[in-house]
Amino acid sequence: MKTSNDYRKRLAAMRPNIYMGGKPVGRDHPAFQPGINTLALTFDLVDSPEYSEVLTAKSHLTGEKINRFTHIHQSADDLLKKQELTRCLCLKSGRCIQRCMGIDAMNALSVVTREMDDALGTEYHRRFLDYLRFFQESDLVGNAAQTDVKGDRSLRPHQQADPDLYLRVVEKRPEGIVVRGAKAHNSIAAYADELLVIPTRALTPEEEEWAVAFAIPADAPGIKLISVPHTHRQRKVIKAPVEEYGTMHAFTVFDDVFVPWERVFMCGEAKFAGRLAALFATYHRHSYTGCKPAMSDIFTGATALVAEYNGIGKASHVRDKLADLVAVGELVYAAGIAAGVKGSRSSSGTYIPDVIYTNVGRYHAEVNIYHEYETLADIAGGLAATLPMEEDFYNPETRPYLEKYIMRKADVPAEYQHRCYRLIENLICSSTGAAAQISGIHGGGSPVMEKIAIMGRYDLEARKRVAKYLAGIPGGEDGENGGLS
Amino acid sequence: MKTSNDYRKRLAAMRPNIYMGGKPVGRDHPAFQPGINTLALTFDLVDSPEYSEVLTAKSHLTGEKINRFTHIHQSADDLLKKQELTRCLCLKSGRCIQRCMGIDAMNALSVVTREMDDALGTEYHRRFLDYLRFFQESDLVGNAAQTDVKGDRSLRPHQQADPDLYLRVVEKRPEGIVVRGAKAHNSIAAYADELLVIPTRALTPEEEEWAVAFAIPADAPGIKLISVPHTHRQRKVIKAPVEEYGTMHAFTVFDDVFVPWERVFMCGEAKFAGRLAALFATYHRHSYTGCKPAMSDIFTGATALVAEYNGIGKASHVRDKLADLVAVGELVYAAGIAAGVKGSRSSSGTYIPDVIYTNVGRYHAEVNIYHEYETLADIAGGLAATLPMEEDFYNPETRPYLEKYIMRKADVPAEYQHRCYRLIENLICSSTGAAAQISGIHGGGSPVMEKIAIMGRYDLEARKRVAKYLAGIPGGEDGENGGLS
Amino acid sequence: MKTSNDYRKRLAAMRPNIYMGGKPVGRDHPAFQPGINTLALTFDLVDSPEYSEVLTAKSHLTGEKINRFTHIHQSADDLLKKQELTRCLCLKSGRCIQRCMGIDAMNALSVVTREMDDALGTEYHRRFLDYLRFFQESDLVGNAAQTDVKGDRSLRPHQQADPDLYLRVVEKRPEGIVVRGAKAHNSIAAYADELLVIPTRALTPEEEEWAVAFAIPADAPGIKLISVPHTHRQRKVIKAPVEEYGTMHAFTVFDDVFVPWERVFMCGEAKFAGRLAALFATYHRHSYTGCKPAMSDIFTGATALVAEYNGIGKASHVRDKLADLVAVGELVYAAGIAAGVKGSRSSSGTYIPDVIYTNVGRYHAEVNIYHEYETLADIAGGLAATLPMEEDFYNPETRPYLEKYIMRKADVPAEYQHRCYRLIENLICSSTGAAAQISGIHGGGSPVMEKIAIMGRYDLEARKRVAKYLAGIPGGEDGENGGLS
Amino acid sequence: MKTSNDYRKRLAAMRPNIYMGGKPVGRDHPAFQPGINTLALTFDLVDSPEYSEVLTAKSHLTGEKINRFTHIHQSADDLLKKQELTRCLCLKSGRCIQRCMGIDAMNALSVVTREMDDALGTEYHRRFLDYLRFFQESDLVGNAAQTDVKGDRSLRPHQQADPDLYLRVVEKRPEGIVVRGAKAHNSIAAYADELLVIPTRALTPEEEEWAVAFAIPADAPGIKLISVPHTHRQRKVIKAPVEEYGTMHAFTVFDDVFVPWERVFMCGEAKFAGRLAALFATYHRHSYTGCKPAMSDIFTGATALVAEYNGIGKASHVRDKLADLVAVGELVYAAGIAAGVKGSRSSSGTYIPDVIYTNVGRYHAEVNIYHEYETLADIAGGLAATLPMEEDFYNPETRPYLEKYIMRKADVPAEYQHRCYRLIENLICSSTGAAAQISGIHGGGSPVMEKIAIMGRYDLEARKRVAKYLAGIPGGEDGENGGLS
Repeated sequence: MKTSNDYRKRLAAMRPNIYMGGKPVGRDHPAFQPGINTLALTFDLVDSPEYSEVLTAKSHLTGEKINRFTHIHQSADDLLKKQELTRCLCLKSGRCIQRCMGIDAMNALSVVTREMDDALGTEYHRRFLDYLRFFQESDLVGNAAQTDVKGDRSLRPHQQADPDLYLRVVEKRPEGIVVRGAKAHNSIAAYADELLVIPTRALTPEEEEWAVAFAIPADAPGIKLISVPHTHRQRKVIKAPVEEYGTMHAFTVFDDVFVPWERVFMCGEAKFAGRLAALFATYHRHSYTGCKPAMSDIFTGATALVAEYNGIGKASHVRDKLADLVAVGELVYAAGIAAGVKGSRSSSGTYIPDVIYTNVGRYHAEVNIYHEYETLADIAGGLAATLPMEEDFYNPETRPYLEKYIMRKADVPAEYQHRCYRLIENLICSSTGAAAQISGIHGGGSPVMEKIAIMGRYDLEARKRVAKYLAGIPGGEDGENGGLS
Repeated sequence: MKTSNDYRKRLAAMRPNIYMGGKPVGRDHPAFQPGINTLALTFDLVDSPEYSEVLTAKSHLTGEKINRFTHIHQSADDLLKKQELTRCLCLKSGRCIQRCMGIDAMNALSVVTREMDDALGTEYHRRFLDYLRFFQESDLVGNAAQTDVKGDRSLRPHQQADPDLYLRVVEKRPEGIVVRGAKAHNSIAAYADELLVIPTRALTPEEEEWAVAFAIPADAPGIKLISVPHTHRQRKVIKAPVEEYGTMHAFTVFDDVFVPWERVFMCGEAKFAGRLAALFATYHRHSYTGCKPAMSDIFTGATALVAEYNGIGKASHVRDKLADLVAVGELVYAAGIAAGVKGSRSSSGTYIPDVIYTNVGRYHAEVNIYHEYETLADIAGGLAATLPMEEDFYNPETRPYLEKYIMRKADVPAEYQHRCYRLIENLICSSTGAAAQISGIHGGGSPVMEKIAIMGRYDLEARKRVAKYLAGIPGGEDGENGGLS
Repeated sequence: MKTSNDYRKRLAAMRPNIYMGGKPVGRDHPAFQPGINTLALTFDLVDSPEYSEVLTAKSHLTGEKINRFTHIHQSADDLLKKQELTRCLCLKSGRCIQRCMGIDAMNALSVVTREMDDALGTEYHRRFLDYLRFFQESDLVGNAAQTDVKGDRSLRPHQQADPDLYLRVVEKRPEGIVVRGAKAHNSIAAYADELLVIPTRALTPEEEEWAVAFAIPADAPGIKLISVPHTHRQRKVIKAPVEEYGTMHAFTVFDDVFVPWERVFMCGEAKFAGRLAALFATYHRHSYTGCKPAMSDIFTGATALVAEYNGIGKASHVRDKLADLVAVGELVYAAGIAAGVKGSRSSSGTYIPDVIYTNVGRYHAEVNIYHEYETLADIAGGLAATLPMEEDFYNPETRPYLEKYIMRKADVPAEYQHRCYRLIENLICSSTGAAAQISGIHGGGSPVMEKIAIMGRYDLEARKRVAKYLAGIPGGEDGENGGLS
Repeated sequence: MKTSNDYRKRLAAMRPNIYMGGKPVGRDHPAFQPGINTLALTFDLVDSPEYSEVLTAKSHLTGEKINRFTHIHQSADDLLKKQELTRCLCLKSGRCIQRCMGIDAMNALSVVTREMDDALGTEYHRRFLDYLRFFQESDLVGNAAQTDVKGDRSLRPHQQADPDLYLRVVEKRPEGIVVRGAKAHNSIAAYADELLVIPTRALTPEEEEWAVAFAIPADAPGIKLISVPHTHRQRKVIKAPVEEYGTMHAFTVFDDVFVPWERVFMCGEAKFAGRLAALFATYHRHSYTGCKPAMSDIFTGATALVAEYNGIGKASHVRDKLADLVAVGELVYAAGIAAGVKGSRSSSGTYIPDVIYTNVGRYHAEVNIYHEYETLADIAGGLAATLPMEEDFYNPETRPYLEKYIMRKADVPAEYQHRCYRLIENLICSSTGAAAQISGIHGGGSPVMEKIAIMGRYDLEARKRVAKYLAGIPGGEDGENGGLS
């Protein structure tokens, strides 16, 4: 396994291809450091007694001990461990741990490359395994580049005014392919080693040119990353983990990018595009059943802490709202556990979490995210929005006033009260917090996508048969147990 | 194992002690038959290939094959099987399968009798095991009599104007005890073999006389069962399973009832009353993670069926609402799975489901039950409430009109449409349905009770430490992983 | 003005054409008496000092003092008075006062008959005014028969397998028309004087035969009323207003019914069918802004009372839930007030409530009705569903037990506690209550219909212009005030 | 009436007493200009034909035409006009118009000064009228400084460790009083002419020193304003109204501030403190029934616009969500209308909006604010959070990519799509938007405060009597109409 230092060195060696704020910036730009620090945790904690069991795994390819973020799930237990790992690390970084997306894409590719080979006689799975070996040995950080920009949402890919609004193959050469398009909302792309590009949706037979999947270094020629910061106000004095870690998104342009065949994992198999898109979504939503409970933990903790500081920690309405926060987080986590326990093995040997449980878990997180913010805001009160700037707390002219008047419970020092509210400001009254709110609803697929996934897989006919059976309508005879056993 | 015939014979042999509608009634009263039919399923299906794996178990006492409804859970797998069993059988009866409550009380007693013995040197666990052997061999149906009538809710048991408002020991004799009081909302008591009586809440040291648990035949001297029917309109022609099965509740009076010591499992150990009350609640709420998903299955099926018959089965707003129903049921089921997987073994060897997951699952079911009714009503339309009586469908003067005008999709026969709406009337527009709605919110404990259970067990301090850690407040150093590992 | 005695005599004189439970029944059947008692209130209270101001009006036709339930609204104040009247009388009957539907249909006809005459040179308005004069002088009770049975919901009227699934004109004769079809969910039809038949929806030009409106005595030849009861268990001893009053629905068949031209108010004007359907809906939904707050008042009162009797009347979670109930009822009432204040005068002189406010009010009531039931069930506890039958409270063998164990607050007599829970059983644990729940969501149009009405009228383009203006996009220049002034 | 120029000159002439970011800043600091621009609208539009009717009024003191933001309400119509004015102007500024708070405090003072004089023989009302004359003639902008910092929420003012945690009188002199304390969350204080200070809550007799109300210039000696910015990223090229206007909050310190008696409107009358606090809240919450519907208009418009640009403007799920947004805004507005129509005249002649309708309106806005953000985020998609920075849209290296790939509907220019998403970013993915979300829940009082206000005024006993009447319980005889008439 590699170290965070190795990872940082790799970044330092990359070709500059990032833009932000109207100019090119290097991967050493301060805005990226919180994100890089977050990824570094995934390297640094492999030997920690607390984390090593969940953070490492045994490669099924080589038998070597590897970072679990490069592991292909071989069992239900692997799925449970990855879910637990995600929750634990998110508590450490205070937000999205980010490295799940790459390995989620790798797991999806491991399944579908094999299924294509089985059905079509292609050789994608062999290529994939070669790449996986490299990925595991180098202990790489992968970005999953899935979401196309999609243009007019009422039109299919091949109906768009500009065919590039979904990323596509524009040329096939003997040694590889050339792709053009853009992928949106690419978390960590600016500090990832590799981009793992997969289709965004199911495709029809006339849409072969859009059926493409591949891996590519994030600084390959033709790739431009336009990065988007959402940052807290920089702290000057009261440093804290909440601002040491962070996330960045990028808008990733593929301006006629060449990909060698060895890195191409789908090219034209339109029929499998939807399968790959959905499988990545399933893995990634299962990751969310780990990270969203961590965010609920943080909101629960912050709500409980500010209530305590305000002297209302035992109030029944506070306990009631805390229980609601707990219920959200734990139901989501429970859904992830059930998805692992009820997971299944694919033809490649890779374990896949149950689609229904995964999606109801992610869905429940999405439809509650705004309410979690509301609860913390409700209990914290208006000061979350009107907390004076940190500098005013350290200006000798204003400091005595602010330290006097921020006091709540008399035995909690003013600085702790300040820190508590500064944390809450970071969480719910900052552009960072607002962006997290939005990614809370759209990350890994929007609520409507989870519903589509649920209804696509759910055995609705079995339930209709139950209703017919109870009503005495013919056709329900076999419906007694809902098709469950 | 016994047969449903054995069970019916046992009922027939019991002393008449039931009242309903102002007069004494026998256990052969027609109002009880749907309930008895439901229980009969639990005997009749033991040899069915579909159900026998979940419906039978191996006794840890005798090694014999027994009905799972008399089994003490020995593993996480036992908990998962019982949850699955509950869901499957509820789909067969179309409602509460009812036999869970007795075995839930037995499991709770198995744990706490041992804990009392360990702590106090009592011999309750030996007595319990003797009774369990009898219970398993006779394949008994037990009612759990927990909820006291409770009088003024702002007062504790010992503060009530009438001390009998919580059931209590009024006399101790060499050969046993005498108890007085009443238990409310006793499902199946009118057709149970035995009543398993346990405390309703935690008690203080001055409340020893209310700390009592015991088993007693349902027709023992001094016991009076005042039974409450909620029935559909009796069908005449279009018979259907939905009305063959049913539930009845009773108000159970203990008018100075004698209980021999061999059947007494707690007497005065006030400190353990809360433990026993809570443990039964945990087991019973875990049962709800099996039965409520079955009810969601039925509501989902009925909603999908009526939508299909009305010609709107593919409409996006219908699919959207169906997905919400699915999400409710599957999240509750997922919570039960997680509770089983994360369960723990007690000192008696009995397996206990995880308290947090159990309670968030039951809670989620409760806060969604009215919405499930609303969804079916919304999609079914007003006819759920204004469906003419069955007799009018068979009166030659009105039949042609009703068969002509009930038609929706032209290829679905009028009788099926009628049956579909009759089922929906039974489900959501009957006193039976209304009672099920209310027990959906209160059965096994009301929402506020689940929240208390959650907050009583939840490690809120660990989450506060996470918040402190992120904010840089001392005391959070150990909070990084939320106390999860 | 007439008396309730006059009304009862008129009913007694009608031709028997009602079916229920498989046989013909007279209008003197006991099942109809609670409904008739409710209507009787609207006659009996005209001279009561408390009600006469809201219950009477001055006819704009004759200048005579008339019952407001026969009045055509001439001003915003008339709309406010009618809303207030509805709320007050519903508190008296404990449910739907029922007489609003007829006058709502009359108001809608008053507007559209004039609009048709203005546009097409017809003479419908003259006919309508003649009929109105008769309606006011006779102080009639009208049923509005709007909802067709509608068959396959994915097909339009003219596409149905059976054209009669929407009521239509099957023959035109010199002296009148012949109609065939059925109307569903007809509240009060069994004890109304007249049926006021109007279209259920907008129609296309090829659907002229379905564009028909008329008035007809409820016992006219060819009309068959198949009536549907939803009744509480009959009380024997503890009589109370909640069971003296009631509602009945009917399924109304028109088997080639002849209507003389003088009673025909639309015949073939397909273009105006939607207008008439929508206008009735508007008036009727405005009525709901009066009656639903009354139901909220009753639920609020019952919740507060049972909380008080249980000793938790001051508990903060109870106050919190009560405030939610209050907020629902008062927001709905406020919407009705705003609809009146912002109402407008039509070409006929009739006042029409504002469509947006009317619909948001009705919508808010619909989406909260199940939650109101849930709140009362939550606070009342399981006894709402398991209250022993009244007869058991008066059987000497069981009475002492029930009176002893129903006790809550020691200073509230057992009978009051019993009465309180019996009321709650009637409200939320009876087929009557269940039917009211369903009509709470569908009465006057389902939630989706209100949304369609809102979006059909709402100036969405003005709001888009506001967004464009704020964003600096051309086309938003005039959008600054949202088109509000 | 004065002009915005007069107002700006007054600000320029004030003593510097503002701190921000650790240093003193002048009122000409760029951060204040958006707020000042917003206030300027209230001066500049008095002669606009569209706004003058609602924006001006006739002084009841002088008969002069005055700015309505300095007017004391003399009728229900004044209340309706002020509500309408608020909605219209907020659409112009795209956010809180801010000038309502001052006049809300003035109206509350007009009522309570008179009530104190009537009860106690004081001369506060005369003083108030003198001050009002000055306020109207000078056309002043007032800040209402109400919310104390409050320290430990479980303790009353006189129980706090530091008595200054509620602002109080520390000295009485012949010519005036000296006050000490701080007021939190003071919108516009940094660019207001005057601070209008009133108590934050009801007080007990031992809390006389905290019962104080007065007016004072915002730059009076001893006053320090610590200001808090929440700003969008500054736009460089695509200027738009959404960023020309803005709001700022301040933390206001009173470090032994002298107030002459002529400006003191309460001093020691603890019994009236709660009345004044509640009355300001009532007026201010009534203002919210004007401004929150404007925010709903903006969110509705932005949601509809982005849906149109994405090609899904007609999709049924979009229409459904839009209808929900409309329903929220219009219910809140309806509640304000009802509050005005059902308002009442106080002894001073000032009109007061109905407390119940005002509070249910404000409450409904609060409990929906997060959901409104969620809806816009849901429809807009992830780009709301990942929109590249404006500068990247104008960097020649990245511009072609961004203009190519932001395209949605082919006939909408890239710049409009960019502007649309930039607006949405400003609204929901910025610290400004996050602060508005929080003030949406806490501004004018938190949800729990509205519930307390509702339950304090609501005639719950009348509803209990309704329940008793329906149940046949004595004491309900007079409850039939719910005490409504």
